Amino acid sequence: MINLDGSQWSTIYNVLSFGLVSMLATTVYTLVAQHRVLPKYRNALVLSSMVTFIAGYHYLRIFDSYSDATVEGGFNVMVDFNADSKAFNEGYRYVDWILTVPLLLVEVIAVLALAKEASRSLITRLVPASAAMIALGYPGEISTDDGTKVLWGVLSTIPFLYILYVLFVELGKSLDRQPEGVAATVGRLRLLLIATWGVYPIAYMMPLLGSDAMDPDAFVLRQVGYTIADVLAKCLFGLTIYKIARMKSLAEGMKDDH
Amino acid sequence: MINLDGSQWSTIYNVLSFGLVSMLATTVYTLVAQHRVLPKYRNALVLSSMVTFIAGYHYLRIFDSYSDATVEGGFNVMVDFNADSKAFNEGYRYVDWILTVPLLLVEVIAVLALAKEASRSLITRLVPASAAMIALGYPGEISTDDGTKVLWGVLSTIPFLYILYVLFVELGKSLDRQPEGVAATVGRLRLLLIATWGVYPIAYMMPLLGSDAMDPDAFVLRQVGYTIADVLAKCLFGLTIYKIARMKSLAEGMKDDH
Repeated sequence: MINLDGSQWSTIYNVLSFGLVSMLATTVYTLVAQHRVLPKYRNALVLSSMVTFIAGYHYLRIFDSYSDATVEGGFNVMVDFNADSKAFNEGYRYVDWILTVPLLLVEVIAVLALAKEASRSLITRLVPASAAMIALGYPGEISTDDGTKVLWGVLSTIPFLYILYVLFVELGKSLDRQPEGVAATVGRLRLLLIATWGVYPIAYMMPLLGSDAMDPDAFVLRQVGYTIADVLAKCLFGLTIYKIARMKSLAEGMKDDH
Repeated sequence: MINLDGSQWSTIYNVLSFGLVSMLATTVYTLVAQHRVLPKYRNALVLSSMVTFIAGYHYLRIFDSYSDATVEGGFNVMVDFNADSKAFNEGYRYVDWILTVPLLLVEVIAVLALAKEASRSLITRLVPASAAMIALGYPGEISTDDGTKVLWGVLSTIPFLYILYVLFVELGKSLDRQPEGVAATVGRLRLLLIATWGVYPIAYMMPLLGSDAMDPDAFVLRQVGYTIADVLAKCLFGLTIYKIARMKSLAEGMKDDH
């Protein structure tokens, strides 16, 4: 059991709701914006819609799970972690990430519209690496032992570093062939990706700062951190993908009145 | 606890339901109306759909929260404000506004289709100002102390006045270049914005008129005021945006048979 006071409880409740509606609204926006980019960039945009749609679904589940797991007890509110039907299910985040994080990376490759072999080569390296990164984080997330948390955290960092290598070194080679302005935006996209992905390990490590695994402040910071990182890495990222697709479409002769 | 009698309770219940369905219906209308305006105005229309979609989501949550927080006790019906899972969550309104109010202002700029630099300059001033306005109102909203309420209300008014300055002085300069009739409609849009935004501070101040923070009449007036202001500022506003986009599209040669 984690004992949250009223304002801690409400903070998580509101931040989960904020995450949920951000995902849904971005899904509608990117679906409707399809016709504003050239057909060859629409796949990147649909992938972005899929990412926020999947994440929106999981935020709905997380939100409901959080409400259901709340047990009234005097002034304090407790979130139950016992493995019964009313336990708070953190697994949703990992089910979400193992679907959305590889999709996010495919989205980046799709919007660049590289040559077929170059795309395939990047995708066959980024997708397994990102799946490994998520899968290796999970045992540490659910463990209440600090040593176990650090061990799996470090293991998960290895594919993460490999992804950064591919994005900065391998992908960098292809940016010379992109139209004016796009290279700069892709550069910002990569920085956005690093900045937001950097929040996940910080949120992951929060329980280590708390007095124990049930420390309420650490729990609040972890939930808020994950949610803000998700909104930046999925919604803001998706809108940046749209912006790149739009810039490239205009550069390639699409009329501005679309 | 706030003790509401049956008719007070029903008034809030019905007005929240009215707000919810207004948002959803306007979302459908503006999504479907997309093809009736020229492509360059569709972004403004999608932004309007996003605003009412996000608001519809939050009205659903507010409505459910209101129902869940209701405790029957004899003749009176009580709305529980204790910080537990069944409390009436007023935070939804602020989560809603911090997303929708900046979007509403971007919507106004988008429908004008100004030069890129002019748009960017207005947006970079309006978005942070509107976010600051909402964020500064929240501490006053949740406070039960009159002095604190007034203090944050005054602080929140500063960015509000800045927004009015930008809309009336800075934006006014661009209106000369708009087609016949559009300048007048934009003028009405600004008046609509002031008139509806003016309802928010009045609703905000309602608790000051009540005998104390739990005064039922003040509570009813505040909920009704916020909801009517939301419907005017989001639905009526969005439909006005559509009207402007339609007028401009026709003025720019779009066939009337669309």
